[in-house]
Amino acid sequence: MQQVNVGLCGLGTVGAGVVKILEGHADEIKYKVGCEISIKKILVNDINKKRDVIIDSSWLTTDPDELMKNPDIDIIIEVMGGIEDTNILLETAIRNKKHIVTANKDLMAVHGQKLLRLAKENHCDVFYDASVAGGIPIIRSLTDGLASDRIQKIMGIVNGTTNYILTKMTDEQLAFEPVLKEAQELGFAEADPTSDVEGLDAARKMTLLANLAFKMEISLDDVEVKGIRTISQEDITFATSLGYTIKLIGIASINKGKVEVSVEPTLLPKDHPLALVKNEFNAVYVHGEAVGETMFYGPGAGSMPTATAVVSDLMEVVKNIRLGITGNEYVTPQYKTQLKLNEEKYTKYFIRMEVNDEAGTFQKITNIFSDENVSFAKILQLPASKEKMAEIVMVTHQISKQQLLNSLENLKDLSVVNRIISYYRVDGEE
Amino acid sequence: MQQVNVGLCGLGTVGAGVVKILEGHADEIKYKVGCEISIKKILVNDINKKRDVIIDSSWLTTDPDELMKNPDIDIIIEVMGGIEDTNILLETAIRNKKHIVTANKDLMAVHGQKLLRLAKENHCDVFYDASVAGGIPIIRSLTDGLASDRIQKIMGIVNGTTNYILTKMTDEQLAFEPVLKEAQELGFAEADPTSDVEGLDAARKMTLLANLAFKMEISLDDVEVKGIRTISQEDITFATSLGYTIKLIGIASINKGKVEVSVEPTLLPKDHPLALVKNEFNAVYVHGEAVGETMFYGPGAGSMPTATAVVSDLMEVVKNIRLGITGNEYVTPQYKTQLKLNEEKYTKYFIRMEVNDEAGTFQKITNIFSDENVSFAKILQLPASKEKMAEIVMVTHQISKQQLLNSLENLKDLSVVNRIISYYRVDGEE
Repeated sequence: MQQVNVGLCGLGTVGAGVVKILEGHADEIKYKVGCEISIKKILVNDINKKRDVIIDSSWLTTDPDELMKNPDIDIIIEVMGGIEDTNILLETAIRNKKHIVTANKDLMAVHGQKLLRLAKENHCDVFYDASVAGGIPIIRSLTDGLASDRIQKIMGIVNGTTNYILTKMTDEQLAFEPVLKEAQELGFAEADPTSDVEGLDAARKMTLLANLAFKMEISLDDVEVKGIRTISQEDITFATSLGYTIKLIGIASINKGKVEVSVEPTLLPKDHPLALVKNEFNAVYVHGEAVGETMFYGPGAGSMPTATAVVSDLMEVVKNIRLGITGNEYVTPQYKTQLKLNEEKYTKYFIRMEVNDEAGTFQKITNIFSDENVSFAKILQLPASKEKMAEIVMVTHQISKQQLLNSLENLKDLSVVNRIISYYRVDGEE
Repeated sequence: MQQVNVGLCGLGTVGAGVVKILEGHADEIKYKVGCEISIKKILVNDINKKRDVIIDSSWLTTDPDELMKNPDIDIIIEVMGGIEDTNILLETAIRNKKHIVTANKDLMAVHGQKLLRLAKENHCDVFYDASVAGGIPIIRSLTDGLASDRIQKIMGIVNGTTNYILTKMTDEQLAFEPVLKEAQELGFAEADPTSDVEGLDAARKMTLLANLAFKMEISLDDVEVKGIRTISQEDITFATSLGYTIKLIGIASINKGKVEVSVEPTLLPKDHPLALVKNEFNAVYVHGEAVGETMFYGPGAGSMPTATAVVSDLMEVVKNIRLGITGNEYVTPQYKTQLKLNEEKYTKYFIRMEVNDEAGTFQKITNIFSDENVSFAKILQLPASKEKMAEIVMVTHQISKQQLLNSLENLKDLSVVNRIISYYRVDGEE
């Protein structure tokens, strides 16, 4: 094989970046993969649009079949976005024995497992490292790492928008709404921020990572998701005074064959490696049986980081074609998906509540927790803003989620407890 | 090719780890590389020694020729250490067309370029990712990244011993000597700690990284090295009060084709990603033209992390053999090595001096700096422990190393300056 031919779908900023890298680094790339990589066709909406990248005009087409059914094309790079229509195009391409490189996490979260299975049947590769944390080769690290280690836990900051918002709220003592508005004006948050702010975007990415790490078929519905909208400035202040930083953390962990995947605001010790990941940066922390702790940090998005990740994936596919080992990305679920019950999910919790400021209150509350065998590492009590009220902030030792829920339920029945203001997972401590 | 045969040199903790991984993960490894990997021979000192790993006793030999000249062996894994004798063995192996995987940084720092050249002539691979920051795939990231990005700066904490010592000095307000002694007792520092403490070990690793990143032939002599022995508790206290953390940082940077490689104690803003890398952990921060900032964090050493890295390298070599692209690890220096002059090295500096506590002192000192166009971002003046003395701590704006050296030289001639106590590079700020 002297040359591999590529069809590129989409010529926005990422697509243009891919073209620039393939041309600017052609020699180095050939040197690394052992053959030339050429772009044959580019699928665009408008052939006549002016573009800031130099291309042969004969490459441009508006007809998908010129890529998906073109016998001269070996690999399709998809950087145009979209879910349903794009999925149909990629399925056609795979049935025509084309390998796929995509940066489309929305597509992969919805149709990923199906595409990977179809690709396996057709001995084709589907690479999507650019779709999770663009500038960080986390999917490759997990798949390669899997071969010689066993992943036990992943903790990730995998959504740049929410990390930007929480960083501003923490460092500048601002409330959620004005920060979101500013982020929207700066282009760090979308006009409809629901998917980011409610944790769904992060949940999609954690699903992809958990499937790879644990070789199970975990679906989006298996992920417990809690967003950042309800985090108040007071929560942040109390967390800070107790030595913690609040981050939106995706967690995927396995214990005796049972897994837990969640995305929720989490308190980390302020010197935890993930606590210092600021603004729109992403980071994924992996605990492997042999390697121990490793962390990958980098830009979560951006057109050049994403284009670089796309080209890295492309190079791997070319190597696999030449090695005759394509079609192995679908990790056949080796294990039946077994989710942890609430009784089996262990962590620490931060709990904040408003109580009557009267004698005996504290004892009544601690009795409730004692009945559930919940004990505490830290307790703060201070006057609340309302008259005759006090606020209690507690951090538990390791307890099960069921112990937490039982305690909260019983607290509600206690007349001295006015309300549970908030509670968050606490992780990353010894 | 149905099977690749391996000769293993050394069966200590790393060697035993390699055997365990190859056996425990045989199926996954075959799946990833497309063929089986078998151990054929193991070179040991004592065949009869009791070992905690199950092996076929016919594999063991004390005769290097049974590995290096064995026509059935394709790849030599070297995890036995040593420099000159080991180098001779590996040269023999390469002349007999064996590929090499080694975790031996001392050997690679001294004979690496020569071995890589010899390997290229013989179309053999030499992989040594396990030799720098064992648990972090940094060499692979640089070589793969190189193909589609251009590295501009590397900052690394690449020596676990000194990072452990500095962490203890900072967090527990202890002096260098007692911390070193404790580290030696705990096995984190060697009986002769010179190579670690003086920065030589880090300099060797930075040489390997700089060669790869900039495609030049940079030798150990080109690296400016300053160790941690002279860092005092007062330096750390002042750095902390100004918002910095002191780390032993290896820096390799390129600017208009000219490079600078150094290892020296450096002040980083306390929220810089590298500032939170604690104890014996390593981390390498890479700034690429396209990707921007990325960081890799993990264990710098340890037998299982190193064994995992060795097996990852082994798998890459097997893929390369099957791809027919072996012998490409020697990066022919594309560029002539051009080192930056002191006039071209720009950074900020922290300077601490003891001065006479009398009227006009401060003005005399600032005049010296003004003459060299040096201005300051932060200045602290406070009484020194000696009578009639004061201490001044200054952090400059960006200046050249030459400006610093000129200023320090002129300060020595100033009668009001009793002594320059210390000065350090400041990096990682905007």
